[in-house]
Amino acid sequence: MREFILRARTAKTGDFDINDLPAAGRMDIVCNSVSNALNIANELRKDTVMHVILEGSPEPPKLLSFHGDSIAGMLWDEKSIAVQIRKALLKSKGIKQGEKKEISNGLFAEKKSFEALVKEKIKEGKHVVYLHNKGKDIRKANLKEDITVVFGDCIGMPRATESLLDRLGAERVSLGPKSLFAAHCIILVHNELDRRGIWQGL
Amino acid sequence: MREFILRARTAKTGDFDINDLPAAGRMDIVCNSVSNALNIANELRKDTVMHVILEGSPEPPKLLSFHGDSIAGMLWDEKSIAVQIRKALLKSKGIKQGEKKEISNGLFAEKKSFEALVKEKIKEGKHVVYLHNKGKDIRKANLKEDITVVFGDCIGMPRATESLLDRLGAERVSLGPKSLFAAHCIILVHNELDRRGIWQGL
Repeated sequence: MREFILRARTAKTGDFDINDLPAAGRMDIVCNSVSNALNIANELRKDTVMHVILEGSPEPPKLLSFHGDSIAGMLWDEKSIAVQIRKALLKSKGIKQGEKKEISNGLFAEKKSFEALVKEKIKEGKHVVYLHNKGKDIRKANLKEDITVVFGDCIGMPRATESLLDRLGAERVSLGPKSLFAAHCIILVHNELDRRGIWQGL
Repeated sequence: MREFILRARTAKTGDFDINDLPAAGRMDIVCNSVSNALNIANELRKDTVMHVILEGSPEPPKLLSFHGDSIAGMLWDEKSIAVQIRKALLKSKGIKQGEKKEISNGLFAEKKSFEALVKEKIKEGKHVVYLHNKGKDIRKANLKEDITVVFGDCIGMPRATESLLDRLGAERVSLGPKSLFAAHCIILVHNELDRRGIWQGL
């Protein structure tokens, strides 16, 4: 199972205009990331779960989880994903800590913080990897199949969170020399995992 | 210089609804590709030109070229790019073969076919590479810095075009074991080129 955890530090947690995603705390980055995590030509990635922690106003944090094995009937352009996210936020309004709500097939909303989710994954025994430009080159890293990949949006992670991830034993992994958007990172991680074991190239 | 040529076989060449990009012949794929070609965190790729050949109704083919070194004042979410594309299509309505129109800084419209553009790049002495799932693994391929990368949208290339590309000496290159969207391919090509020569990883 591949799990991605995106920390979206400004993305709105209430109603927003689906026709202006940048103004909704860079919701465009969130939507693009969800699309890149789950959608490939002609199929969905059934072995993947995409988690997004939204931390913008009015009721942060909100966790939305998209399960590739059960989600259905979605289009994968930014606006269509934004429609689903908005629905999830409105339907989970006022949700309490510890509550989990199924919004539609394969889409869940929870009141849960980024730190709590990462700790949960560590407890589950997941191999947690943290994207960082000073990390080990992903092409040389020892990646497990049951992996959780954590990354920030264009703002990056607060220093305290970096320290927490280090303390929890999350491995720092780098994708290349350029700073990339979250959505781009997902493509590169998927490609590296796709290549491992099953493909030697020509 | 890195140049990308996307052949978008259904994307509209006239007015379309910027709030429903999938309905405009999968214009969402075009917009996402343009964004991924030029936009990285905190900067633009000044060494990159993104060409899109739109082949949908009403006046195909239409070539739009986005120059990373001179384009300015754009937002990079799908809808914002669609606004620019729509403007370019409306401003270049009725344009004649051989005419080239600057729509705004760094954005040009022409009446030119995919085949004509590829032939032009070959004549210019560019190293033309063609993404194909039976091609040589990009990680092992000999890539020149002055490269032109050609790819189809989710429909792929007509057989006759594949033959033409082979005849012109375009090299087939593969990115991995999965069939990917055009926009995803661009991320992988950029990453491979970014790594070459200047980055050894940790």
